[in-house]
Amino acid sequence: MKVNFGIIGFGFMGHIHEKMFDSMEDIKVVAICDIDEEKMSDAITEGVIKTTSVDELLEIKEINTVVISISNHVHKEAVIKAAKAGKNIICEKPAAMSVAEYDEMIAAVKDAGVLFTVHQQRRFDEDFRTAKEVYDQKALGKVFTIQSMLYGINGNMHDWHVFKKYGGGMLYDWGVHLIDQMLYMVDSPIKTIYADLRNVINEEVDDYFKILFRFENGITGEVELGTYFLADKPKWFERHWFIGGDTGSMYCDGFEPEGKIARTTRLLTNVPGKTTMTASGPTRSFGPPPEGLLVTEELPKVDVAHIMFFENYLKALEGKEELLVKIPEVRRVLAVMEAVRESAATGRSIDFE
Amino acid sequence: MKVNFGIIGFGFMGHIHEKMFDSMEDIKVVAICDIDEEKMSDAITEGVIKTTSVDELLEIKEINTVVISISNHVHKEAVIKAAKAGKNIICEKPAAMSVAEYDEMIAAVKDAGVLFTVHQQRRFDEDFRTAKEVYDQKALGKVFTIQSMLYGINGNMHDWHVFKKYGGGMLYDWGVHLIDQMLYMVDSPIKTIYADLRNVINEEVDDYFKILFRFENGITGEVELGTYFLADKPKWFERHWFIGGDTGSMYCDGFEPEGKIARTTRLLTNVPGKTTMTASGPTRSFGPPPEGLLVTEELPKVDVAHIMFFENYLKALEGKEELLVKIPEVRRVLAVMEAVRESAATGRSIDFE
Repeated sequence: MKVNFGIIGFGFMGHIHEKMFDSMEDIKVVAICDIDEEKMSDAITEGVIKTTSVDELLEIKEINTVVISISNHVHKEAVIKAAKAGKNIICEKPAAMSVAEYDEMIAAVKDAGVLFTVHQQRRFDEDFRTAKEVYDQKALGKVFTIQSMLYGINGNMHDWHVFKKYGGGMLYDWGVHLIDQMLYMVDSPIKTIYADLRNVINEEVDDYFKILFRFENGITGEVELGTYFLADKPKWFERHWFIGGDTGSMYCDGFEPEGKIARTTRLLTNVPGKTTMTASGPTRSFGPPPEGLLVTEELPKVDVAHIMFFENYLKALEGKEELLVKIPEVRRVLAVMEAVRESAATGRSIDFE
Repeated sequence: MKVNFGIIGFGFMGHIHEKMFDSMEDIKVVAICDIDEEKMSDAITEGVIKTTSVDELLEIKEINTVVISISNHVHKEAVIKAAKAGKNIICEKPAAMSVAEYDEMIAAVKDAGVLFTVHQQRRFDEDFRTAKEVYDQKALGKVFTIQSMLYGINGNMHDWHVFKKYGGGMLYDWGVHLIDQMLYMVDSPIKTIYADLRNVINEEVDDYFKILFRFENGITGEVELGTYFLADKPKWFERHWFIGGDTGSMYCDGFEPEGKIARTTRLLTNVPGKTTMTASGPTRSFGPPPEGLLVTEELPKVDVAHIMFFENYLKALEGKEELLVKIPEVRRVLAVMEAVRESAATGRSIDFE
């Protein structure tokens, strides 16, 4: 039997969700809702109920789960309403504008005893899962740095994302994913957070950030996103990962990741005799490696897809699996984002956990 | 007339210095000194005096300038001796192990009224000067990030650099250059410093660091060096620069730098209709740029060489030029290195100036 879904907010992500559910045996979209009727004109689900009223959608008894894909500043209101209506909830990311908002939402969710999760689907990104697999396999020895980067050519973002009052900006939009990935990968408390956050091109909202996590397990995690960060290099405007350990490194570039694990056949006990000439004289420590010293291995293959997020959700609904994206995890990411804003504003690191 | 030089310490750098002076019309190496007589056996200067005693070298009246290229932990002693002997001094970098040591040295230099500078010859590195030229030309609009990286394949360093007591480690060895370059380029007070500093492969000494400078003028400077930081990419084990501004970016790779300035023909007012499919669904903000949006320009050409450091020194000796590397600049770099160690130890940012 299909689980009946309602989609609240039929913009870009609402459309994506409808297509996804249309492809799934076990989900039926019963109703969609948007304040802009026009946006719902191209819905593909046969017989789907269309309404401009969230309340009307929530009154539909047969709806088991609502997917909330409206702009960030109204997630709280919609989640609380949906919880009170007894609906299970999948909320778009970021779940809330702040930890305080989120706590109100979760109180309502707990009162109502409904299921709640957040659409952090990028836990299934191939690039991320490849990096995570290398990390989980402990393939690089003792890891000291994990670097996660994303660069873009768009000076501007889209739709409501360029406006502050709607919860726009790249920290909310992609930052929430990149932070979530880092915290999901590195299972350790965070000692400090240090961050830079900028409006490079956009007037109202941030479009560049760099975040450094000092984890208690000794790893430094680093996340950098630039929407106006340009180079004519292959796969530049995509994802980049670098992990450094004491027995090797891993790099991985692109949404369909390409990369290698790189190692040395030995650790040099002294530098080779050859020196590299630079404009200001020779350097012994840097320059092309001696023949045969650098060796590479293929990256592990991972088999992941966006649909897995919803497959997990359906199993959780049946009590067969834990929800992948858990309430405290989402709260932690929101708390990180607040620390990021504070660190960026003060220029100082923030003690975290 | 040639200026008479003495070289104190005839190891790797002592040899480099002798070759350099041999190529210069205006410098004559009168004497060299090393505690290890064997090291002086391949000196190329005809009739050069060889001694194992610093005091003996300093007694040679005709020596105008000594170049101090012994290991870091004995710079202080040698500089103070040389100053007392009335010699002008070019000291290898890092000038001292600490700011406190440096202040003692400078007191002696000032008492003696001799000239003092530090061999920060990497101010003449082609990669650095190319990046600096782009910065000075204000070619990228308002700059928000300057990133300076150097990666190596050597797990180990060489000679005394692997021992803590001699002032080993990469922060002292290359960090002093990379920090000096950043501060020489960005003429602004530093608000905070945040750093990571690691012994990845080496037992005693650091061989990885990342330093973030928050400058008062709004720029974030970043320096990263990894001696065991591996990838099979062209020019990987060399220098890398990235500068991001609001009208373009610059990248520059290699000791003989190759790179581009990259710009967009317009700023997008909204994202193009095309989306990029990633494993976990589409993204509108990232992916290959639309045809024609990204354009590049050649990097400016710079004409620099190691010899310019000594040409400047000789002119300063004649009172015709200011010394390029000034006493307070060297002190500031040493103070940054102390802040780096403190930040790395605590995981917290350090308020600086």
